[in-house]
Amino acid sequence: MRQSQLFTKTIRKAPRDEKSINSRLLIKAGFINKLMAGAYSYLPLGFRVLKRIENIIREEMNGILGQEILLPALHPRSSWEVTRRWKEQIMFKLKTRGKKDYGLGWTHEEIITPLVKTFVQSYKDLPVYVYQIQDKFRDELRVKSGLLRGVEFIMKDLYSFHQDEKDLDRYYEKVKGAYSRIFKRCKIGRQTFLTLASGGSFSKYSHEFQTITPYGEDLIYLCKKCKLAVNKEIIKEQKYKCPKCKSKKLETKKTVEVGNIFKLKDRFSKAFNLKFKDRNGKEKMVLMGSYGIGLSRLLGAIVEVNHDKKGIIWSEETTPFQAHLICLKDSLKTRKTAEKLYQDLSKKGFDLLYDDRKDKSPGKKFADCDLIGIPIRLVVSEKTLKKNSIEVKKRREDKIKLIKITDLSKFLKKIV
Amino acid sequence: MRQSQLFTKTIRKAPRDEKSINSRLLIKAGFINKLMAGAYSYLPLGFRVLKRIENIIREEMNGILGQEILLPALHPRSSWEVTRRWKEQIMFKLKTRGKKDYGLGWTHEEIITPLVKTFVQSYKDLPVYVYQIQDKFRDELRVKSGLLRGVEFIMKDLYSFHQDEKDLDRYYEKVKGAYSRIFKRCKIGRQTFLTLASGGSFSKYSHEFQTITPYGEDLIYLCKKCKLAVNKEIIKEQKYKCPKCKSKKLETKKTVEVGNIFKLKDRFSKAFNLKFKDRNGKEKMVLMGSYGIGLSRLLGAIVEVNHDKKGIIWSEETTPFQAHLICLKDSLKTRKTAEKLYQDLSKKGFDLLYDDRKDKSPGKKFADCDLIGIPIRLVVSEKTLKKNSIEVKKRREDKIKLIKITDLSKFLKKIV
Repeated sequence: MRQSQLFTKTIRKAPRDEKSINSRLLIKAGFINKLMAGAYSYLPLGFRVLKRIENIIREEMNGILGQEILLPALHPRSSWEVTRRWKEQIMFKLKTRGKKDYGLGWTHEEIITPLVKTFVQSYKDLPVYVYQIQDKFRDELRVKSGLLRGVEFIMKDLYSFHQDEKDLDRYYEKVKGAYSRIFKRCKIGRQTFLTLASGGSFSKYSHEFQTITPYGEDLIYLCKKCKLAVNKEIIKEQKYKCPKCKSKKLETKKTVEVGNIFKLKDRFSKAFNLKFKDRNGKEKMVLMGSYGIGLSRLLGAIVEVNHDKKGIIWSEETTPFQAHLICLKDSLKTRKTAEKLYQDLSKKGFDLLYDDRKDKSPGKKFADCDLIGIPIRLVVSEKTLKKNSIEVKKRREDKIKLIKITDLSKFLKKIV
Repeated sequence: MRQSQLFTKTIRKAPRDEKSINSRLLIKAGFINKLMAGAYSYLPLGFRVLKRIENIIREEMNGILGQEILLPALHPRSSWEVTRRWKEQIMFKLKTRGKKDYGLGWTHEEIITPLVKTFVQSYKDLPVYVYQIQDKFRDELRVKSGLLRGVEFIMKDLYSFHQDEKDLDRYYEKVKGAYSRIFKRCKIGRQTFLTLASGGSFSKYSHEFQTITPYGEDLIYLCKKCKLAVNKEIIKEQKYKCPKCKSKKLETKKTVEVGNIFKLKDRFSKAFNLKFKDRNGKEKMVLMGSYGIGLSRLLGAIVEVNHDKKGIIWSEETTPFQAHLICLKDSLKTRKTAEKLYQDLSKKGFDLLYDDRKDKSPGKKFADCDLIGIPIRLVVSEKTLKKNSIEVKKRREDKIKLIKITDLSKFLKKIV
């Protein structure tokens, strides 16, 4: 894409009311725009990153046999009366002109359980794994930290349905694996730890995935040896010990919760009377698990972890474009070469952002490039052309390489 | 995908309260599920079709240089007070715990106009074309006809920003072209007509795209010669004449509105004071256009137009799978051949639904296949194997062909 056509521009200063690093950088670089506290618009660059994160999650969910669906955000009151969660304050409520009560979904157990019930009668119909990537709405009292806590946000929620605890436990471990792969692919793997948490009203424990960042809202107690943590809520109950090795050498770290997984067991199947007939024709309750990842929050966490003074640093799998091609100074020769390169590389399937702006200085172009944070920078200038070359630099490194124009596409194929 | 693993099943009878053909067929075949009047869940088959329609629309929008973004569904009251549309009854309203007023977006002019204003100062920043594919919410009094009129539905909305009427007119014609291509690719092109409609408070006229179906809610007056129609609202004003050839030979047809395009002119730029400086440094109002397609409604219209007594008939571009492979009767030999075919074809990149169910009769398998409506049916049976062949049948035709197993992948490549 030509940067001259991109309708957003980088902004010199982030709004004063934006305190968090993630939203300050994402707004300055033109990835997002704030509509109101807790609600952001995704602009072309941000939308591209969102789609790439969505794709990573989709691949990993399909990899553990999840079937993708899409549920409504608007729910009838009756569904939530069944579980007595209509009264929850987190739920936005509204009335139609016809005086019907609707709520906005902040989670979807109340919708997915009766839906799956339509199709499950026997043990032969189990297990079922379904997920969606969809908007959630929450009436949060404390809306802050940019993308980390919103009144509206995008979430991936997976629900699993099983005939017994053994099968639920087996799948729960599979999801743990898929989640670890997702966070690794999003380049926050080294900072993200499986964290023992309370199971709420469903079961004794659940697990969170917590990412260490200096401005995190949560607190975890981390055992570095076991790479396992305990969250603040239950650390006292755990006697300030690692749940695995029982060591008391725990480090406290500020974190952001990027995922959580729950064994719901029969909490919702009981409420909706979701039963199945086992091999012997005996009726039993279906057991359930639920597994969430906030995509907008994940995007925020990626930026919190991957940035420097100059701007964001995307990885190959999350970047909005594969490379940022810059025509440094507008002479006839540089322009002609840059245009040809842009067209040739695009034809070969490379997805480039091409800075073809005529009225910007080299300094401004470099600064925008670092702020936006695409992993590879390609510069065409009078100087490089004297050597029939292009300057190649990775966003994470200071090293600059000159690559012959004729070798560029081969070279790029190796590094993108 | 293996049909034995698909968590949905076909349903013998559609619910009695579903009156429209589109929702009856889509529910019976397991594409959608009704949560409440006007709100449906997309199940794995329906989700796949939705993504394919999304893809067609995305390609055509990118083709006319639209830049994709994603705006929030939850809006602050203040944005809507600016245009005095907060009072519109179609808008769902809710209050937060902190007593703030929010509305649910039923369209996005109030959000996109101030957003684009952030980035537009000069004629050099124009034109701007932005679109999104996103959930809309409407407090409809009459919710009916399955996917055709919902309280929650998926919409593509494109907004364009221009320096003068000439540029707006030029782009408006481009969008007309893109819309025609979309409806053609969705296989409702022959039934869909550009229809002159009222321009509301924005300009004299707008255009709708109306698709003829026997159970449509709308009425158009069609000039068959010009392939142009006039809607009911303004036919009197048009003196019951074709707007182009002035003929009075108009046919009345029941239709569904699948798209609409508006010249908004300065209605919203005035409200939000969206100005730009022209070549001479003179301040002028930006002119706008807005262009919508309801995706859920489009999906419904496709089914209304493309079905027969046995079920849905998808086209190559909208089908959930490229072909439906059926292992007709479970003998060791048929099973082995079907399994091998499924694996080989999948490896070659074909996206198949594979009916590997062991407990279903051939009759049930054929009926499900016709109901689901994938364009190509491949049958493996004892009979076909005697000739080392597979039976190939198109959903739209009665003709059955025997194709040698060794030639199948080559043959498929030609027809999918």
